[in-house]
Amino acid sequence: MKVAGIHRRSLWPADGGDAVMVIDQRRLPFAWAIARLDSVARVHEAIADMWVRGAPLIGATAAYGMALQCRVAAGDGELHQAKALLDSARPTAVNLAWATRRMLAALAPLPVAQRADAAWALAGAIADEDVAVNAAIGRHGLALLQDLAHRHAYRPLNILTHCNAGWLATVDWGTALAPLYQAQAAGLALHVWVDETRPRNQGASLTAWELGQQGVPHTVIADNSGGHLMQHGRVDAVIVGADRVTARGDVCNKIGTYLKALAAYDNGVPFYVALPLSTLDLALADGLAEIPIEQRPPRELTHLSGRAASGEVLEVQLVPDGSAALNPAFDVTPARLVSGLITERGVFAADEAALRTAASGTAGG
Amino acid sequence: MKVAGIHRRSLWPADGGDAVMVIDQRRLPFAWAIARLDSVARVHEAIADMWVRGAPLIGATAAYGMALQCRVAAGDGELHQAKALLDSARPTAVNLAWATRRMLAALAPLPVAQRADAAWALAGAIADEDVAVNAAIGRHGLALLQDLAHRHAYRPLNILTHCNAGWLATVDWGTALAPLYQAQAAGLALHVWVDETRPRNQGASLTAWELGQQGVPHTVIADNSGGHLMQHGRVDAVIVGADRVTARGDVCNKIGTYLKALAAYDNGVPFYVALPLSTLDLALADGLAEIPIEQRPPRELTHLSGRAASGEVLEVQLVPDGSAALNPAFDVTPARLVSGLITERGVFAADEAALRTAASGTAGG
Repeated sequence: MKVAGIHRRSLWPADGGDAVMVIDQRRLPFAWAIARLDSVARVHEAIADMWVRGAPLIGATAAYGMALQCRVAAGDGELHQAKALLDSARPTAVNLAWATRRMLAALAPLPVAQRADAAWALAGAIADEDVAVNAAIGRHGLALLQDLAHRHAYRPLNILTHCNAGWLATVDWGTALAPLYQAQAAGLALHVWVDETRPRNQGASLTAWELGQQGVPHTVIADNSGGHLMQHGRVDAVIVGADRVTARGDVCNKIGTYLKALAAYDNGVPFYVALPLSTLDLALADGLAEIPIEQRPPRELTHLSGRAASGEVLEVQLVPDGSAALNPAFDVTPARLVSGLITERGVFAADEAALRTAASGTAGG
Repeated sequence: MKVAGIHRRSLWPADGGDAVMVIDQRRLPFAWAIARLDSVARVHEAIADMWVRGAPLIGATAAYGMALQCRVAAGDGELHQAKALLDSARPTAVNLAWATRRMLAALAPLPVAQRADAAWALAGAIADEDVAVNAAIGRHGLALLQDLAHRHAYRPLNILTHCNAGWLATVDWGTALAPLYQAQAAGLALHVWVDETRPRNQGASLTAWELGQQGVPHTVIADNSGGHLMQHGRVDAVIVGADRVTARGDVCNKIGTYLKALAAYDNGVPFYVALPLSTLDLALADGLAEIPIEQRPPRELTHLSGRAASGEVLEVQLVPDGSAALNPAFDVTPARLVSGLITERGVFAADEAALRTAASGTAGG
């Protein structure tokens, strides 16, 4: 999508083929910085410290991490070690291990000498595939939005989203935001409520920035406000992304998603989750009991960065000295609260039969 | 309650009787500043700009505003004008108009020359009464907590609260926090989850500070985290304050309260609202349709103050230039989600019969 009018992806291979380039998303929205990741250690750091984030982008970046390892040493031992390191960077998003597993499975049968080139090509293919998958998610989501728009013919559709599941969370298009970008392209009038998404404010700093660059009308709200807006009929649908979805349709996503799903259910507002099928984890059933929830540093909650009146971006402390803080990064929304899962193969119900069908490759409804 | 070990109220009359002193709560937790309000205009400013906030404290401060008007001119016209000005400072909390109406009703029958002294005495009585009322709320709430503690005998009780309904929101004791302070005094082991409460962060900046000064164990969490903690059995009860409660028990409180009530209901966690009966508005039934919701400046959401590494408290911008923001300050929790209302006359069900009984002066259950 666009940055200052120029089309960009969130990740691309360096010209020399010796590094992968990413946007340092910690610096947005007040600075634009590109980071060069030239080793598996740097890729690990970029994922763990959230220079890149978003389940699909984490997957694509990790694929390049495996490819960078092959540039140095591509033996079986080294590849397993690189995979273990990369997988440890973030525990919740299943796309990370999905991508490194896919790389390993493709590389293992090859002679070691052929692995570096094959790995580079496959990482590129995974990134390109992500773009195609998200474009397809966008098309299926657009059909849902067009249906909603028919019911609200005389005003823009109001869509609420939480965190950032836009193009910055993927290689391009995004998951939750892909239908909105397609809707914009199709001339459908819409307005987006952007949850701030404390503690890291990915809504205010990334989603609002993305939508602004793309010219999509939007309003930032506190995470506390979505329920109130739904009570007053000001939200027509919620669309969020996902970090992991279980076989029965429980959705693990950014902390606070569950609260919005409860409010949507209580007010009869459709609650959709957009995801590539690589986010499905069919090995798990009960999301609450089985998905590991990452606990991130309390400092992400007690301190916050922003732009001072001087123009300088700096960090301020919000919580008094001596007060503890807890920072769970994700929560689980039970399948019963989910209206539908928007995937590259269509929109599926949040139940096991539908999701096994989706995963097996049959087209959805 | 205590500040640096010394007992304080949040408001007290100046020695000369020509002003009321308040804590400038905008400066907490990083600075301690006392403000002198010596005119009805200053009182209006202090309420509108939230130097003081919290429904009961707003009421007591407004009562002093009426008394300060009497020092200057105490005719009927001036008093009605002062009441209109004060009532306009914040639209949602009913205690504001309750206090100014009470002052006016007591002063109107008096000769103008006697009004200044009577007003000063009545404002003091309203403040003292608030302290007694909150102590009673604390005792009734303590009984609920003791009952809960019997069911969780081997660990501290975990109570979640939203915003600040502590002593800083009242003259002393608080509403939602009064039961916790009484529990601490009674030796009951407890731990408080403190919702940050965006956008003004009254949880992180006021509740955490209060609890810290008082030595009550607590942990600050993002507003997004409470549902997740409830899903995992880490919250035994929610207690919040209220800005207005309708005859049928709909609760208007800080934005985001409704989301926590939904999560409590979904997880079988008791959800209590603590309030003086002056917060009841028996003239209203349907809280969603009838309570005016204050829209506060978007800047409270797009900018945030904190302490920089330099030690300086300064404001930083969080939202990109060009993105709009919306800042509704309150929401309404329907009575069906409320387990009980803790008042100075006991704990009442959130239904009309119970609340009319409470208001009429009969003791609650």
